[in-house]
Amino acid sequence: MANLLRPATWGLFSWRGYCSRGTQGRLSAGFVEALKAIVGSPHVSTAAVVREQHGHDESMHMCQPPDAVVWPQNVEQVSQLAALCYGQGVPIIPFGTGSGLEGGVCAVQGGVCVNLIRMDRILELNPEDFSVVVEPGVTRKALNTHLRDCGLWFPVDPGADASLCGMAATGASGTNSVRYGTMRDNVLNLEVVLPGGRQLHTAGRGRRFWKSAAGYNLTGLFVGSEGTLGLITAATLRLHPVPEATVAATCAFPTIQAAVDSTVHILQAAVPVARIEFLDEVMMDACNRHSKLNCYVAPTLFLEFHGSEQALAEQVQRTEEVIRHNGDSHFSWAKEAEERSRLWAARHNAWYASLALRPGCKGYSTDVCVPISRLSEILVQTKEDLEAWRLTGSASLPRAPGAGRGGAGAAALSFGPPGTVVGHVGDGNFHCILLVDPEDPEELLRAQAFAEQLGRRALALHGTCTREHGIGLGKRQLLLEEVGVVGMETMRQLKATLDPRGLMNPGKVL
Amino acid sequence: MANLLRPATWGLFSWRGYCSRGTQGRLSAGFVEALKAIVGSPHVSTAAVVREQHGHDESMHMCQPPDAVVWPQNVEQVSQLAALCYGQGVPIIPFGTGSGLEGGVCAVQGGVCVNLIRMDRILELNPEDFSVVVEPGVTRKALNTHLRDCGLWFPVDPGADASLCGMAATGASGTNSVRYGTMRDNVLNLEVVLPGGRQLHTAGRGRRFWKSAAGYNLTGLFVGSEGTLGLITAATLRLHPVPEATVAATCAFPTIQAAVDSTVHILQAAVPVARIEFLDEVMMDACNRHSKLNCYVAPTLFLEFHGSEQALAEQVQRTEEVIRHNGDSHFSWAKEAEERSRLWAARHNAWYASLALRPGCKGYSTDVCVPISRLSEILVQTKEDLEAWRLTGSASLPRAPGAGRGGAGAAALSFGPPGTVVGHVGDGNFHCILLVDPEDPEELLRAQAFAEQLGRRALALHGTCTREHGIGLGKRQLLLEEVGVVGMETMRQLKATLDPRGLMNPGKVL
Repeated sequence: MANLLRPATWGLFSWRGYCSRGTQGRLSAGFVEALKAIVGSPHVSTAAVVREQHGHDESMHMCQPPDAVVWPQNVEQVSQLAALCYGQGVPIIPFGTGSGLEGGVCAVQGGVCVNLIRMDRILELNPEDFSVVVEPGVTRKALNTHLRDCGLWFPVDPGADASLCGMAATGASGTNSVRYGTMRDNVLNLEVVLPGGRQLHTAGRGRRFWKSAAGYNLTGLFVGSEGTLGLITAATLRLHPVPEATVAATCAFPTIQAAVDSTVHILQAAVPVARIEFLDEVMMDACNRHSKLNCYVAPTLFLEFHGSEQALAEQVQRTEEVIRHNGDSHFSWAKEAEERSRLWAARHNAWYASLALRPGCKGYSTDVCVPISRLSEILVQTKEDLEAWRLTGSASLPRAPGAGRGGAGAAALSFGPPGTVVGHVGDGNFHCILLVDPEDPEELLRAQAFAEQLGRRALALHGTCTREHGIGLGKRQLLLEEVGVVGMETMRQLKATLDPRGLMNPGKVL
Repeated sequence: MANLLRPATWGLFSWRGYCSRGTQGRLSAGFVEALKAIVGSPHVSTAAVVREQHGHDESMHMCQPPDAVVWPQNVEQVSQLAALCYGQGVPIIPFGTGSGLEGGVCAVQGGVCVNLIRMDRILELNPEDFSVVVEPGVTRKALNTHLRDCGLWFPVDPGADASLCGMAATGASGTNSVRYGTMRDNVLNLEVVLPGGRQLHTAGRGRRFWKSAAGYNLTGLFVGSEGTLGLITAATLRLHPVPEATVAATCAFPTIQAAVDSTVHILQAAVPVARIEFLDEVMMDACNRHSKLNCYVAPTLFLEFHGSEQALAEQVQRTEEVIRHNGDSHFSWAKEAEERSRLWAARHNAWYASLALRPGCKGYSTDVCVPISRLSEILVQTKEDLEAWRLTGSASLPRAPGAGRGGAGAAALSFGPPGTVVGHVGDGNFHCILLVDPEDPEELLRAQAFAEQLGRRALALHGTCTREHGIGLGKRQLLLEEVGVVGMETMRQLKATLDPRGLMNPGKVL
């Protein structure tokens, strides 16, 4: 993760498209004209401010701007752009909404950023087949707004209003995945522009069936490839019926162990829970403040159930029974839509609620996932590490104001909190949001060391260093440790096969 | 599909391991000794009868025996075998239970058949994490017997008692997939011996989490690769809680259209049906005879629901409401375990029930899948084709005896029936089981033409030529039409990268 601190490398390039110092970054004027000829002048920019906007995502990875940004309006233009760049040896970096958390859009070798957001049509909706085809500019929320009246929805929900093709590219997941799966389960087909410009339909053009046994699973290979194998220009997605009824709840626990044990027991009882999210007491305190909740400041589960009224009543009853077995807890049901929305808005704003705990800080999110039998072990250890760090925290940090509604963890906030914990515990996944002073290099290094240690701890417990954020720039060493030498070499071989010049989003994943 | 009729090619080989005419097929005595040195003499055979047993599966593809069969007992031996064969240029053909339907085990270029069935240990069971690790000799039924007392089961059920790693290799599916998914959804990790002998753990050694975003999805690439990229020597599978209660039903419909419409409406109503199987009237008649059922001879759905008693009551009620809307139908609920078992045993024996309709015939199964909105269209067309064929069927065929319980389709059986229809309609998938006289080359050609035409019809309706049987030998042309030139080339590139000498199960898929 050393690149967090490393200045952008502006080395010498032998690529024909580059000149040593041009008005357009390192691109020759002729090359920029060629870009304009493809997408039209208004859809190309080499302005510094625009390039900088496209040189980073929401993570702490330093801005590494591309040399130009282009906005194609259709797949033919994307093909031509890919052919041009590839022919000229210029790196290509796909860009969606920029809401990633692993530096996936940083132009570490410069090149052309292909911002796909102006391709924003919903190409084909087939309600009877539970499928839809979207261009890469369509976001999760835009799709669900469009679907509002047809009784269907797309459930994968990483929090941010990300583009759906970007979510496919990073293999995104989110709060509903315990019931509805991740992007890996909900992408039926992808249209991909390969590095040289050719168009691939991973399951065949126009196909929209659920799963096939026809040849190698190309769809699966491109989901989660983080723009390193090609540009996703359309995705066929699987839709789900809108549940007849929904009920949400919060449940505060005396300990993390009790919260996690309850999660495992709910899953073992085969309660078809739609969401089961863990928030530690620091996170709950932050949400109380930021989103005007009035919850206990304690390890808490946010739960949601989908089904018919009758099915919900039973799910709720079973869940209460399971949780009662794990000791004292405080249940609070949210049956009204407004109350539910408030709760989930608070959960979705957990990132911003965390940042608000320490004005001026930046967030640094971990993303480990372990088999659920190891979840309480790693969560308890991680909380101890956070506490140890908090107690020795830098004196230069502003202190958090006093806790809200008095509860178990309120006292823990009397010093600057270095981090909150929130997670999709039904999948064994959780995030530490470390609140780091961007001006303090020592703290930054400490955050990196913390994240790496946590990643290694997850690996030691048969887990993964990233469940949903991807590898990007920051986790390449951990990826090697996770998949081993042969796994890494196999991935490298696949990359070299599909992108022999190494120009598709270079420096990421491998 | 021309290979059905083509004699085995026993061409000349320049491979060092081969001699022009040895006592062991085309393998030199020294090579056979080297095989014995790895796995032990009792675990190598070059006997003609053994080689022939391993030269075919349950399909009509002609027997193409390997030159030797070996039975490794552990992964180290598999690695050594792969290294030996690859170094000597000898093809490697993995073999499980031989229950495939696309000729995936035929040794089209000779070589060594690696029968993995003696590696039959359940290596690791983690009930709390809903996961298990199995060697390739463990079959679906053996696993579920082993799991009997721990409240979990593995739901993917292709009918045959196939080996689980073989099911992973072909991307198998089956009756439960509408609720529990296919092998693609239920394999968490694979141990694979690559062509040169190196061992790959697709998700990293020992990892057993649900889904990750760590690098390229190697697990997804190897599931469904039909032994053409490596030998699967262990699989980590996702288990599910045994449902608290189960209820099954049959429902006879006046028309195919009514049966399919009911299926679509059940899915749209979000009833979490566990199984929804279609059987046409010819298939029902066959099941009545073969499995001593007493069902109506009419287009029929077999349904199964899983859940708590309370949830089941609601699912059943909703299903009845939906089906009543689609006209007259005959419901029959099977609430007792024994009655259910009889029903599903009959469904699982549909293949043999079909064969029994025409003594001496062989079965030829199609495997198309379409978006469910197109299902009734293709089913009705297919039934018309079958009927047209039946009416002009070869005079040499024995006639089926009269129908059982009188019903809609009974009259249709007065001539020799060329085929039955059965399918996992909740996924848009169905099979025609064509009952072909193996001594009649013309009929064989006609069956191939019928299957190809049906495959093309599915492709025209945005479907796939194979949902669960795989490509094997017979569907390579259809695969090209399905995924297109770029898709096919991409698959060829992946194959060439992972198996540069083209020795892993050659002639299959591509």
